This record gives sequence, structure tokens and C-alpha cells, in this order.
Amino acid sequence: MSTGKINVTADNIFPIIKKFLYSDHEIFLRELISNAVDATTKLKQLSRMGEAQGELGDLTIQIEIDEENKQLRIIDKGVGMTAEEVDQYINQLAFSGAEDFLKKYEGKLDGADIIGHFGLGFYSAFMVSSKVEIITRSYKAEANEAVHWTCEGNPEFTLDTVEKAERGTEIILNIAEDSEEFLKESRIGELLDKYAKFMQVPVQFGTREETVKEGEGDDAVETKVTVPHIVNNTEPAWTKSPADLKDEDYAQFYRELYPMSFEQPLFHIHLNVDYPFDLTGVLFFPSIKPNMEIQKNKIQLYQSQVFVTDHVEGIVPDFLTLLHGVIDSKDIPLNVSRSYLQNDHNVRKISSHITKKVADKLEELFKADREDFAQKWNDIKVIIEYGMLSEEKFFDRAKKFALMVNTKEEKFTIDEYIEKVGENQVNKNGETVILYTANPEAQHGFIAKAQAKGYDVVVLDSPLTSHYIQKLESSYEKLKFARVDADTIDKLIEKEENNVSVLSEKQLEDLKSAMEENVNKAKFNVRLENMDSSELPLTITVPEFMRRMKEMQATGGGGMFMGDLPETYELIVNTNHPLASRILDTEGDERGTLIRNATDLAMLQQNLLHGEALTNFIQRSVDNL
Amino acid sequence: MSTGKINVTADNIFPIIKKFLYSDHEIFLRELISNAVDATTKLKQLSRMGEAQGELGDLTIQIEIDEENKQLRIIDKGVGMTAEEVDQYINQLAFSGAEDFLKKYEGKLDGADIIGHFGLGFYSAFMVSSKVEIITRSYKAEANEAVHWTCEGNPEFTLDTVEKAERGTEIILNIAEDSEEFLKESRIGELLDKYAKFMQVPVQFGTREETVKEGEGDDAVETKVTVPHIVNNTEPAWTKSPADLKDEDYAQFYRELYPMSFEQPLFHIHLNVDYPFDLTGVLFFPSIKPNMEIQKNKIQLYQSQVFVTDHVEGIVPDFLTLLHGVIDSKDIPLNVSRSYLQNDHNVRKISSHITKKVADKLEELFKADREDFAQKWNDIKVIIEYGMLSEEKFFDRAKKFALMVNTKEEKFTIDEYIEKVGENQVNKNGETVILYTANPEAQHGFIAKAQAKGYDVVVLDSPLTSHYIQKLESSYEKLKFARVDADTIDKLIEKEENNVSVLSEKQLEDLKSAMEENVNKAKFNVRLENMDSSELPLTITVPEFMRRMKEMQATGGGGMFMGDLPETYELIVNTNHPLASRILDTEGDERGTLIRNATDLAMLQQNLLHGEALTNFIQRSVDNL
Repeated sequence: MSTGKINVTADNIFPIIKKFLYSDHEIFLRELISNAVDATTKLKQLSRMGEAQGELGDLTIQIEIDEENKQLRIIDKGVGMTAEEVDQYINQLAFSGAEDFLKKYEGKLDGADIIGHFGLGFYSAFMVSSKVEIITRSYKAEANEAVHWTCEGNPEFTLDTVEKAERGTEIILNIAEDSEEFLKESRIGELLDKYAKFMQVPVQFGTREETVKEGEGDDAVETKVTVPHIVNNTEPAWTKSPADLKDEDYAQFYRELYPMSFEQPLFHIHLNVDYPFDLTGVLFFPSIKPNMEIQKNKIQLYQSQVFVTDHVEGIVPDFLTLLHGVIDSKDIPLNVSRSYLQNDHNVRKISSHITKKVADKLEELFKADREDFAQKWNDIKVIIEYGMLSEEKFFDRAKKFALMVNTKEEKFTIDEYIEKVGENQVNKNGETVILYTANPEAQHGFIAKAQAKGYDVVVLDSPLTSHYIQKLESSYEKLKFARVDADTIDKLIEKEENNVSVLSEKQLEDLKSAMEENVNKAKFNVRLENMDSSELPLTITVPEFMRRMKEMQATGGGGMFMGDLPETYELIVNTNHPLASRILDTEGDERGTLIRNATDLAMLQQNLLHGEALTNFIQRSVDNL
Repeated sequence: MSTGKINVTADNIFPIIKKFLYSDHEIFLRELISNAVDATTKLKQLSRMGEAQGELGDLTIQIEIDEENKQLRIIDKGVGMTAEEVDQYINQLAFSGAEDFLKKYEGKLDGADIIGHFGLGFYSAFMVSSKVEIITRSYKAEANEAVHWTCEGNPEFTLDTVEKAERGTEIILNIAEDSEEFLKESRIGELLDKYAKFMQVPVQFGTREETVKEGEGDDAVETKVTVPHIVNNTEPAWTKSPADLKDEDYAQFYRELYPMSFEQPLFHIHLNVDYPFDLTGVLFFPSIKPNMEIQKNKIQLYQSQVFVTDHVEGIVPDFLTLLHGVIDSKDIPLNVSRSYLQNDHNVRKISSHITKKVADKLEELFKADREDFAQKWNDIKVIIEYGMLSEEKFFDRAKKFALMVNTKEEKFTIDEYIEKVGENQVNKNGETVILYTANPEAQHGFIAKAQAKGYDVVVLDSPLTSHYIQKLESSYEKLKFARVDADTIDKLIEKEENNVSVLSEKQLEDLKSAMEENVNKAKFNVRLENMDSSELPLTITVPEFMRRMKEMQATGGGGMFMGDLPETYELIVNTNHPLASRILDTEGDERGTLIRNATDLAMLQQNLLHGEALTNFIQRSVDNL
């Protein structure tokens, strides 16, 4: 038996790095600026510990485009590298300089964040460059003593000494022909805005004009001056303590994050954990208007202020992907695939922590200013209902502050509402029946009938309503929901007493046959009810169970295949309405016309009269005006 | 100046392979079976060229789970490897054995597809294994002479000789603790169905029961026998010549691809190109029902019968991602990110080729059996209209067979339809006006009025209608579309002649004031028209331009912000209807009631009467029954 060592040669690995390392070539810029930030942070750290001497001076990182020479340059004034360090960190692929550094100074670092992983990240430069150069002078080096490293994307490199006046590292990318987009100012500007917007060290790219006021009052003179354009805010809101921030600071931060948005967030949640995992961030609750396209992917994920992604599925629970804002965590691995993220242990803990914090914040808002919370309810209910459906822990928290809103816009918690409707809406089986409408306008007639009986009606108009009430029915004992048009009001909340009919058994039988002969039996199931004579003669209802199952299936869930079942309706005849007797007194065409006219009106009430039937109805009515 | 070579050590590269090489760990199974298929294909190739001697025997690849030892084994009877080859192909990372092989036999291979890239793909095994073993015997080796290689996920390996009765390679994965899902039969079965369903060499996984009939007629006896379970069809439809396939073969293939689907595809397109790029495949046109959730990502991408992905955005044009089926191309690089795919030159050519083939097929169907094509139109129009909007080349092809369907369900090409409506629908500006309805049921009254004038009405009810007609108007000269409810019919197709009014100037003025005093002026713009006395007294219309702009904005596109503008309507009073004179003859409450009743009916016709107004209308009408 023999043993050996698997041999990896750079010749073989280089093409893989170019093709496979990152799916987006643009990421090279993030990696190189991260390295520059890292080198600068290291220097500040060393200076604080007394290991780097003298004044540090301006530490701004510079990004320069040299169109003529087809170069893009990233210049920092950080620690720099000696020839030995270049050999160690650059010439050895996948050797993490940052890890080495962290190990050496373990315990001595007071919160400084070391981002980059020297080596691999640096090599992403070859995705866009035909030749990469490094000119670097270590903070330890003698004056002007610097190293010049070049490599043309094959494993051979050259190393030389050069003169360099300032400490730090300059990365020169000789942009390849197929990547010339990265020589355009607009493209680099866009990438800096995406990746470097909140990095920890100032990054300068070009210049901008600024108006300066000199003198005071009438003597004031405004002059335009050209100043360096700093692309980043090194201290975004989420890095600060909530105690140091006012509401307007969060509003300002929201505008920084989404400069193109006209929206105002409803409120924010400041996340700040350091044990058992590291997590900071600010989440905003947007106002979700009905019919507005729901935008996911507005949450941005950062790692130590470096943008990672705006796809946070798996990191935050699905129902919270509707929120806006920023999450920053060192415990979320950079550069890995989403499916990897979703299986990561830390990431799962972060997800459940965020859920808890959101529930905390909502409960706090509810308790602190219930009126304000109630005003925001319509904008946040979709997120809360979605959360209650998908996370049991969130349900248990949220049922205390989830609101029921009735047609008079009065708002109650679920428990309060059950108490409000009280015995009045308890049916003969002892169940509290909550009447609801999906659309107060369209179901106005049915709501009016319920209110005339002294009942209350809540508005449940979110796309998740069917799932939500199903969940509530299964979580509360003896609670039932019924849509106002699901039956006649006396059947929706059935009591012991019953109206009697003014008609005889024989008349009832005749009435039923008369109706069935004159309506579409495939569509309408004729039913006689002994209602008040003041109620409408005919009412069309949509039975609750089938309708709800169909709706649940349409929005995902359910289980049975009900989508293809035909829509059927109950056509309920009020036997105590004078029209019932008139139908019995007529015959032939006259009876037909009477039933048709009455049925047309019942269909109108359920928005079922369309097409030729409606055109004819209108023409007849115009003739009778 | 010095030069050197960048040093890559396997110690550094191994963790990267484990974490970054593939985002889905499950992919290891595809890679290892691909290698096995590759080794088998090589052997068949060598045998055909006389380089491998003797009978090849059964070449089925076997997948075995050994739960007790926590092993998953992939066993092939292909070429196998000698110790030297193991050293060359396995111990040298990223050294592609397949490429080497292809180079050596260049020109001698008659269409055999070599899949695997030995080396890198093999190493994906370490994503799920604590230890990987290879037992392999080359077709060149002496009897029983085999090599046993083991490696525990660090760069050290051991190499030993063992005895092995059969030619070929056995990969033994000692599954790591965090990957034990890959020891479950259901999980492996699922992965084989996903990745190996159509691989070129039979793959066996476990056994299944089969019913065998012995004897004939009454003597027939059915017995159940256990047979090896072959998971793949090695010759799927797309690998065959279209000439060898009947319609039922394609239908059968569709069921193979989507065993859970109840749908039937409408027709198929067999792709078969070998120059300038390699592409085979079968695409199916699904029937797209209105209101059905549109499913993208039903097209599966293969490379040499190995499943790559079902995300084909960027490979097929967006409008064709609604199709179903398979594309197989060696020119689409495996394992790369989507953004890379979208920028690949070959991939772009493939995309435009597929568009062309789809247009070819549609034109062919249209020409060969127009009636059949017309019957399918409703199911395919969304895809075709979407294509016409997004690809200019497709527009030029499709305008020859895109159909217009009128309310009588007669179908015409665009040119035929323009000829059909002829001079009759040319307005005084010389423009042909195509009248359309978005909903024949809801707009029945307006359609009836247009037909009464001898005009024809087409049904345009797809979500893209506004964009589509805008595109047609800009591509055809003197062509205009108008929805039937956009104005009174005489204004929609304006001719030179005009009706006169039976009312005097003074009466017209009084009528307008009377109307404006009694309707909601914010919502309705009152306009008097001298129409036929047989037309309705009041008509509510929705001006075409604003409505269309709003619709276009809602479905993406447009540009101006019109979403927030209030809905306004024209309330058109027919001055020649007897009601107009009656309004002038009445005053006070009586006039108010008359106008309200007539306005309610006009609102009913436009589906605008809701809520309390509708409830009151119904109650009044019931009282008048």
C-alpha cells in the first residue's frame, strides 16, 4: 500500500476560479474594496495597540478609472504588504490573511470587523482582467520601499521592487476586452452604490459639485466648489445604538436605503444581538395596500457593512420577506448559495430570533398606543395574518393583538370581539358565529339584512382570509365564521325559534314546483324559507363550506380538487313575502314573467346578472321608466 | 525582478470544493453517475474501434444503499482505471480525463457523447462523504487485478491493490453524519428521477414487482416476479429522429416527463440542429387557460441526456418559458450560474434559433390545417401575443398567422379581418377601426348596439391586450382599435353624416343643466349626443386612451404615472330619446327621480351600480314588481 498527496496545480485551478468562483463577475469590485477596507481597519487596530507608529493621515480608499490605459484602480492607505506577505497572502491561493491576523490578535481586537479573506477574494480580479498588478508598501517598510507584483491570469507572476510615496496597497486591473463595461463611470458608480454604500472606511470615486455659502445675511455669496465624492456612509443607522437614534434618523436611513421610493415605512424594528449569534439591523414595516404588487426582496443582507445579497429567503421567515430594511450579521457566511444558507444552523436561529423580535415590537406598539396601532392595522394585516398562518409561535403571540374590524370601522382584538357580539351571535349549538364580508360594497344588501337583525359584520378582505378563519376556527373553541351571503340571516345564526309560513303545505309544494319550472335548475337549488314578510322575496346565497374550500385551494392549500366543480347557488324563496302568494295566483306567461323579474333582481344583488340577460333587463326597465 | 509560480495546495482547495463547488449538495449523485455513464460509453466506443476485446456483457450501472455500513455505492462496468490512470485522473485535481480521451480519439468518435469531467465532478463526493473509496479494474488489466483508492476528505490518499472479479469502477461513499438523508431509498429514488431519468446507460436501483402472464386464453396464469428496477429510459424521444416518431410517441414522452400532469399538450416542436451549435429537444405547447396560474420552469435542460436545470431563463426567450419539454445541448456549459449562461454567446444563438423554430412550426401548423390551428388559438394566443410584443423577428413571422376572433367565434388573420370589415368600418379620417370587447358578457349591451349598426366586434381578452393593440396600431398604417364601451357607436366609427336633434338649442342647454344638477359631476362628464331615438336614453362610456394607458401601466410598461388618476366616465344623453323630452317636462323631485332611475340603469350596464345604491335600486324594483 502506498500513500500520497492529491496534487493541485494552479494551471488547473485558474480556469475554475474564473468561471465558477462567483456567478456575477461584478462581485470582483466588492471583494477588492472589502480587502482595502480590511487593510485599513487592520492599520487602525495596530495603531491603537501601539504597533503602528505615527499619524495615520487620511485613510480614504480611492477608486479610479483610467480609460486611456483601460485600467481600474483600487487604492488604499492601509497596512500594505511586504514582499514576504505578498508571497504568503497572494502567491498561496486560498490562504486567508485575515484569518491569520485574527488568530494572532485574538482577544485584543475590540469589535473591529475584519472582512476580507485575502487570497480567494483577490483572485476574483482575474474574472475581469487580462493582467492584475499590485503595488504595495507595508506600514513596516522603509520610506518608498514598495513591491510590484504582476500576473496575467496564468499561474506565473513577477515580483519587483518599486518606489511608492505612500503606505498602502494599489490594485491595478488591466480590464480584459470582454469586460470593458467596468471602465464606464456609470457602471462603477452603480456597483459602488450596490456594494459599498455602507462600508466602514470612506470610499472616494471622482468628484462632485457642492454649493458653499460665504458671508452672512445679504452679503452671503454662494459659490460652487468641486469636492471629492465619497460614495458611502460609514456609520449607517443599524451600527448605532437605538438609544442614540430618533424617529427622523430612521426615516432618513429609509430614504438612504431606498432613494427611489415614495413610500413611508409605518414603523421600524431595530435588531441588536451579540449572543448566541451576532446580528444587527433595522427592519421597516411597509404599508401594504390592497391590489399593490407585493414586493419581496427589499431586505438587504450585509456582512460587516458589506452588501451580500437582497435575496433573504431562508434567512428571514417567508412572511417577513415583505418587510424592508437591512440585516447585518457576521454569522451568515458570505458567497454561499441560498440552499446552503437555508440549511445553516446559525441562519435558522437568526430566522426565529427575527420572528420573535417582530412579535415583540408589534405587541409593544399595540400596548403603547393602541389607537395608532389600529390605524396601521389595514397596512400590516397581510403580514401578520400570513405570519399567524405559517409560524405557530407567531400565532400565539399575535392573537393578542390581531384585530377584527367591523363595517363601522370599529376595531377589536379577537377576544374582545367574541365578547362584544356576546350571546346575541351564539347559535343554538352554543357556537359564536362571526359574520363577515369580503366586500362591503358588493355585499351591501346582505350586510344591511344582518344589521337589521342587530348583528355585527366584520370586514375580512385579505387574500388569505379563508385560510385565516379556518385557522381561527381550529384554534378557538366554539367559534364559527360565516360570510353574510352564505345563507339567509336566520340560518347563518340559527336560533331555536322558527317563523311559520302563511302558506299551506299544498301551497308550499306548488310554489316550489312553480319556481323550479321557471329557473335554471342546474345553477339554482330552490329552497323555501319562512322569513319575515319584510325580507326580500328571493335571495341567492353561496354556501360557506364549498366557497371557502375553493378559495383556499386557489390561494394554495386545501387539498381536495374542487376547482373544477361548477358554482352552485341556493335560490331562497321567502314564503311569507306577498310575492309568493302572487306567484301562486298567476299562471303561464304571467307567472313566468313575475318569477323572471324577481330572479333577475336577486341575481343583481349577487352580481350574477350579466350579458344578454342584463341587456334585456335594462331595456325592459328603460321602457317602464 | 523575480518570477515564480502561484502555489495552490490541496489543503487550501479542499474546503473550497466542499463549500463552494456546487450550491446543491445533492448534485454529487448526478456527477458520479455521469462519470459511470462516461466510463461505459468509452468502453463501448473502444470496443467498436477494436481496442477493447471480447464480449462487453451487461453494462447496467448499479446504485446500492448499504444502510448498515452507511455506504452509498455507484458501480459501473465501464473502462475502469489502472493505477496510473487513478494517479492521473483522480490524484490531479481538475484534470479532465474526458477531455484527454476526446483529444486522443478526435474524429474517430461517431457521435458518442462524453459527459463527465473526471476530477472535479468526482470530488463533489466529498460534499456528502467522510471517506470516499474507489475500487477499479481497467479493461486493460489482468484478471482480478484492481486498484483500491481511499481518501478521507483531506489531501492524503492511500492506494492499494485488491481483487475485483469484474471490469469497471465502484465508487463507495461513506456518507458523512450530516448527510444521512442520502442513505434513504426515497431520497435517492427522487434524485435518480430528477437527474438520471434519461441517461444513456441503464441505471439499476433496487428491484420492483412485475406481473408476468404465462399461457394463453383461459389457461393464462398471472404471476408476480421481482425484476431489477431500471430507473431510466436511455432513448428518450428527443434523441430519435422525428421521422421515426408518431404523435402518440410524443404524447407518451410528455407523460414520461410530467407523470403528475393531467394536461395534454396541444402540439410539439422537435428541435434538431447540429450546426453551428448542437441542439436537440422536444418542446410542447401547453394549453394556457385564462385564470390559470401560468407555470414557468417546465422546460428541462439536459446535456447529453444528463439533467442540468429546469431554470431556462436566458436560454429560451422569456415568452417561450411558458412552453414545456426538454432541450439538450452540449453547447450549454454545465454547472455554471444563470448570469453566466445569459451572457454566453452560444446560448444566445440557441435562444434565437428556438424562437425561429417555434415560428416555423406555428406557420406550418397554420398552413397545413388552419381549422385545427384556429381551434387551438385561444390556448396559445397568450404565448404568441407575448412573443409578438417582445421579439420583433417573431412579430414579423407571427402577424401572418395571429388570429382575430369575433364575438361569433369566426377567426381571421389580421389582414383578412381588415379586409372583412372593409369600408364599413373606415371612419371619416380613412382609418379602419377595429371594435373590440374585453368581456363579451359584461359588455353585451355595447356589443349589441355595434352589431345593430352592422359592425363586427372582436374579442381581445388577454392580459396583454392593451400592449398588443398598441403594437398593431404602430405596425399597421391607418389602423385603430376601440373598445365598444369607449364612446357611443357613432363616435367610435365617426362618419361624415350626423343626426340632428329634435330639441332646440335652448332645450339642449336646459337638458344639460338638468342632468348636471342631478348626477355626481366629479365622476360623470355629461355630454349630449343626437342619437337614434331607439338607442338608450343614457349611456356611460370609458374613454379609450386613458383606460388603455392605465391598463398598460398596470401590466408593466407605459411610462406616465396614471395609476392614481381617478376613474372618470362620460355620461352621454341621447337627446332624441323620448326620455330627454320628459326630463324637460318635469321638475323638482319628479325630475330627480327620473334622472336617478335612468342613471342607475346606465350604471348597471357598465357594472357601476354597487353598495347602498344597488340595494336601494333592488328594493324599489321589488316594490314595483
